[in-house]
Amino acid sequence: MRILVDGMGGDYSPSEIVKGAVRAASEVDATIGILGPEETINNLLKQENWTGNNIEVINAAEVITNDDSPALAIRRKKDSTIVKGMNMLKAGEADAFISAGSTGALLSGGLLLLGRIKGIKRPALAAFFPKIGQDDTTLIVDCGSNVETKPEHILQNGIMGSIFVNCVKGIENPEVKLLNVGAEDGKGNDLHKEAFEMLKESNVNFTGNVEGRDVCFGVCDVVATDGFSGNVFLKSSEGVAIAIMNRVKEKLTEGLQAKLGAALAYGKLKELKAEFNYDREGGAPILGLKGAVLKIHGNSKAPAVYYAIKKAIPYVENDVTGKIAAAAAANKDICAE
Amino acid sequence: MRILVDGMGGDYSPSEIVKGAVRAASEVDATIGILGPEETINNLLKQENWTGNNIEVINAAEVITNDDSPALAIRRKKDSTIVKGMNMLKAGEADAFISAGSTGALLSGGLLLLGRIKGIKRPALAAFFPKIGQDDTTLIVDCGSNVETKPEHILQNGIMGSIFVNCVKGIENPEVKLLNVGAEDGKGNDLHKEAFEMLKESNVNFTGNVEGRDVCFGVCDVVATDGFSGNVFLKSSEGVAIAIMNRVKEKLTEGLQAKLGAALAYGKLKELKAEFNYDREGGAPILGLKGAVLKIHGNSKAPAVYYAIKKAIPYVENDVTGKIAAAAAANKDICAE
Repeated sequence: MRILVDGMGGDYSPSEIVKGAVRAASEVDATIGILGPEETINNLLKQENWTGNNIEVINAAEVITNDDSPALAIRRKKDSTIVKGMNMLKAGEADAFISAGSTGALLSGGLLLLGRIKGIKRPALAAFFPKIGQDDTTLIVDCGSNVETKPEHILQNGIMGSIFVNCVKGIENPEVKLLNVGAEDGKGNDLHKEAFEMLKESNVNFTGNVEGRDVCFGVCDVVATDGFSGNVFLKSSEGVAIAIMNRVKEKLTEGLQAKLGAALAYGKLKELKAEFNYDREGGAPILGLKGAVLKIHGNSKAPAVYYAIKKAIPYVENDVTGKIAAAAAANKDICAE
Repeated sequence: MRILVDGMGGDYSPSEIVKGAVRAASEVDATIGILGPEETINNLLKQENWTGNNIEVINAAEVITNDDSPALAIRRKKDSTIVKGMNMLKAGEADAFISAGSTGALLSGGLLLLGRIKGIKRPALAAFFPKIGQDDTTLIVDCGSNVETKPEHILQNGIMGSIFVNCVKGIENPEVKLLNVGAEDGKGNDLHKEAFEMLKESNVNFTGNVEGRDVCFGVCDVVATDGFSGNVFLKSSEGVAIAIMNRVKEKLTEGLQAKLGAALAYGKLKELKAEFNYDREGGAPILGLKGAVLKIHGNSKAPAVYYAIKKAIPYVENDVTGKIAAAAAANKDICAE
């Protein structure tokens, strides 16, 4: 197995990307190809004292930034890490591609270079969201790759999410719910009412609507949603979590007594912080592409890279892409081109 | 001024409603009318040792529950607290109506009995959301009253929110942003792109898009949104806040050392909890109706009732309803019937 990592994407590239790749390489039974300017990456590998034989450096001189127009950059920057990664995936020279680069460029690159699985209308960005206090996650599909959504897209998000969770987490018949404004049947606008009916008639284990406030309590395995609401859900939850944890820290360093209390409770507070460490959930797959592409957060550091590489392995081993293609082929009525 | 309170709505009615009304009555220069079964309410007032003269009991024998079909219940339950409250508001016998009852029934009652302000296409539920750590709030409009949204509805949400915040909080030219999937111009789907342009051309102080993750950091005074996304935003933020605060409590009671630490930091932890006390923000106005209607959470206890009554006063005194009507009349191009 060969897993490609974009050495140049994100705020902390290339050094943190290389660190994460080195950490993963010593643990996994796969070759890790780091894409980027050869000399820079090799120097960083030296700094990390890398002496193993399962990291390759694949020279890619260009970088697509967040300021580039995604579709244009994919067409013009032929020697960029994203274009090279996608092309290697397409040519069968690699099994997965992980990048902290521009989501837009990854989506454009995925669509233009790799292409959609036959029958899948819109690739969807799927993110693992913590079931708070349960050491488990819920998969949210779509988190924003497709914001002009039709009911059949939401249905396909549910199907793809179900297959992914089954393959990667080994859950039989994952429970799928629809993100909506109320838990009762019949809630929402036309888009969500139609998606509800389609999910109900599909062969996924659909158990109805879920409200935004219940997702973090872990009521299901997969949340199917339109890309706009999914993006709002994910980002607002993330914002509130960060703001509250910051506030806990601030309050517990106000005054000597609170500081002393915080010092005594330090171990537990550290455990708590680890629970909200999104790095472990790193690696949001873009489902529906003809290949395993995982997006990691733009502010990813080494641990996020490490966990994403670890997550890519069951993605490839269990042939998620092939299984989504098979499901689409078996459901021609809902997955016609 | 006469403020009506629905004695029968919500999970803790009537006792907590009466408690909250009693607490407010002793502080405000207004008559408070509690709607509900006369004997029950009078008994509760006796239990609270109420001896003042600015609480009235208005007999209403029926209750509209969450199980009732809202529009049907408004038509049939003529002696319900919500129907009576709306009718008194319409007849000019009261200045504001506060209820913890079914949002659907309040909206239906508002539309069928009070009616919309001329030119306002959809009433919108507006909620105050904490700017975390800042002792201030952002108004989110709409939080779910209208889930089948058009661009002009989002524009009107921005206009109404701006007027409300100006009147109630005294902010000149409140800063309005549009909830979107990215902060840059041109983001989102057609609905949001069109709403963006309309807000830009309007006379509200519109400063662009805001992502879900930035709202809680207090980047603006008003967030204009479609009702579906606004609902997802509010509920997911609320869910995460509750889950994390529960988790903080759980972790700090695990083991003697953490407990001791928590005891020392107790004062600060209590302050922290108070910061996330949504009761203080209680009273979400349904903007765009021909009268001041405030919805409080179904699980409201006395403090939420108390704060909502306090919030109703500047709503009435500053004639928010009249100002929205004037703004709609002055903007006939966007507020035509």
